[in-house]
Amino acid sequence: MAHLHTPLCDQLGIRLPIIQAPMPSASTPALVAAVSRAGALGSFGSNPSQPEAMVRDAEATRALTHAPFNMNLFVSKQPAAIDAAAQRAALDAVAGYYGEFGLPRPEPVRAPYAPDLEAQLRAIEEIRPAVFTFHLGDLPRERVRRFQALGVKVGGSANCIAEARHLEALGVDFVVAQGAEAGGHRGSFLRDPSESMTGTLALVRMIASSVQCPIVAAGGIMDGAGIAAVLALGAQAAWLGTAFVPCPESGASEEHKQSILSSEEDATLVTEKFSGKPARAISNRFTREMHERGAPHLAFPAQNAVTRPLRAASAKAGSPDFASLYAGQAAPLSRALPAAELVAALEAETLEALDRLAALRR
Amino acid sequence: MAHLHTPLCDQLGIRLPIIQAPMPSASTPALVAAVSRAGALGSFGSNPSQPEAMVRDAEATRALTHAPFNMNLFVSKQPAAIDAAAQRAALDAVAGYYGEFGLPRPEPVRAPYAPDLEAQLRAIEEIRPAVFTFHLGDLPRERVRRFQALGVKVGGSANCIAEARHLEALGVDFVVAQGAEAGGHRGSFLRDPSESMTGTLALVRMIASSVQCPIVAAGGIMDGAGIAAVLALGAQAAWLGTAFVPCPESGASEEHKQSILSSEEDATLVTEKFSGKPARAISNRFTREMHERGAPHLAFPAQNAVTRPLRAASAKAGSPDFASLYAGQAAPLSRALPAAELVAALEAETLEALDRLAALRR
Repeated sequence: MAHLHTPLCDQLGIRLPIIQAPMPSASTPALVAAVSRAGALGSFGSNPSQPEAMVRDAEATRALTHAPFNMNLFVSKQPAAIDAAAQRAALDAVAGYYGEFGLPRPEPVRAPYAPDLEAQLRAIEEIRPAVFTFHLGDLPRERVRRFQALGVKVGGSANCIAEARHLEALGVDFVVAQGAEAGGHRGSFLRDPSESMTGTLALVRMIASSVQCPIVAAGGIMDGAGIAAVLALGAQAAWLGTAFVPCPESGASEEHKQSILSSEEDATLVTEKFSGKPARAISNRFTREMHERGAPHLAFPAQNAVTRPLRAASAKAGSPDFASLYAGQAAPLSRALPAAELVAALEAETLEALDRLAALRR
Repeated sequence: MAHLHTPLCDQLGIRLPIIQAPMPSASTPALVAAVSRAGALGSFGSNPSQPEAMVRDAEATRALTHAPFNMNLFVSKQPAAIDAAAQRAALDAVAGYYGEFGLPRPEPVRAPYAPDLEAQLRAIEEIRPAVFTFHLGDLPRERVRRFQALGVKVGGSANCIAEARHLEALGVDFVVAQGAEAGGHRGSFLRDPSESMTGTLALVRMIASSVQCPIVAAGGIMDGAGIAAVLALGAQAAWLGTAFVPCPESGASEEHKQSILSSEEDATLVTEKFSGKPARAISNRFTREMHERGAPHLAFPAQNAVTRPLRAASAKAGSPDFASLYAGQAAPLSRALPAAELVAALEAETLEALDRLAALRR
């Protein structure tokens, strides 16, 4: 049977130009292995993982498949010291919610707010995944080269043309063009994220016209028609996150899965209230009330520590009200399929879309 | 030679699935006729035109070509009476700018703020363009049928799934799915426009999956790769506005054309400060300062009357500072070509994109 293929597929060692986007809770070894075994590229969202957990994830995946996979890290800087007044304001803003769940009054959060990035980067060098991607910043050119010398292909995220050019100049193997539709954290690092909310169609085309390296398109892609569309724009692969959240292999909570599967109209917003950095999520009681009140929050990633107990309590109570329901704007197109079936459906639909396009010529 | 074709092309009587979007200042009879003669569909942005001007535009076009064209109207309601305090605040907000151009202090604006819609609709019935499209609202089902009975195909704009379904239920011949990338006025009429900022890729796919009638895709499409992309998403035609603004036949000001041609990175914002309704335009001194100051504005379309003298004075001075530089997010992909050459380039590029896609199968 004819199948889809781009030069980037050869570079990354994958059969299909489809990448399951990295997602911290959803990306389990079971999901990543199922996706990669099916011919696409599975990805770990390793940013909240300690190096040992990253190693365990990689080992668990390799026990399931020899196929390539991707590990993704956030490479943004840790915030400067947070002053006591900002702490108090951010904690006061959520104290009532803590009370609702019977949690003790929130305590000031302390650095480190996230795993040590250097230790995580060394874990990548040790693990040597086929692909390493980074988000929310850049890495020195020498570091990119070191990964590549280890046989690891490297990609970075861009929300604007300037970021894509910057990443290309650092020697990455590919750039992920993240359009405004995308769920999860905005990858912006050179411009204000609110000024880089360009839709996927416009962004992918502009970036593909501005750099020579391969482009991977992200944001609002949920099916084969979307994949065919970004290939038409010049992307060499499509990056789908939300589409994989409802898979049975995904580690996302049932509330998260159901919120995506039941969304009927665009119900997302870009919020800084969960982590401190803007990320697209399905609107819920927490985001609505925090935005209505103009409630303060701490800088990324310290705000994650402020909301973690609430998110955990919400999940334990089976409620979506305080969960970070990260999702893209095309969530209404989601479906609950095992990962391998979803990958197969995406492949078949993409080929169908190409057939439909070919039939438009007469 | 093989050429592109969709069922909607037959319905609208056009050779190519390409529509030049309606734009009040840019859409001259020369532009519309050149586009339509080249096989695409030219469109008038007739919303600020009196019925007599609409008739003149149609006659001038028909003197140049027998090809079909589209006339577009805004069908939003006129605002309720504007109270004196709101008037004063909105006028005070711009009085300093009036002074800079040596204009007299702004006078309170008075209804009617726009041509009478009923008279404009009757003009459409008299003119009987091949296509009539409406924006920013709906029309009664009987009115849609009356146009259709006169041989006029009717389309309406949707910014969300709910609006697309609503328009389909009114019996329109096609729905224009206007993604967040689009330049000019947001078409929202059932939801808050700020809650319907879905990217073109996501929106077109969701609407194509939600209604049976043909979809026309708008927002961020500047070249044949973009056209191929929206055809892949299931659209039956692409609607391009910004791409046609720089054409020599376009009536847009030189400042407007140059602002688009020289834009290097997304430089647009969605602003209500020109007309009272949100519209995407290239950021300039007026939008920057009005937004920074949180300056008040009148409801649509009364604010148009407040800013009209400023926009005219800015144009006369050859300055983009106070001009409404309506443009979409992919403006950096613009080029200055005569309309017929642009249409030919779009056709050739779309076919090339389809060839590239076909070559991805192996």
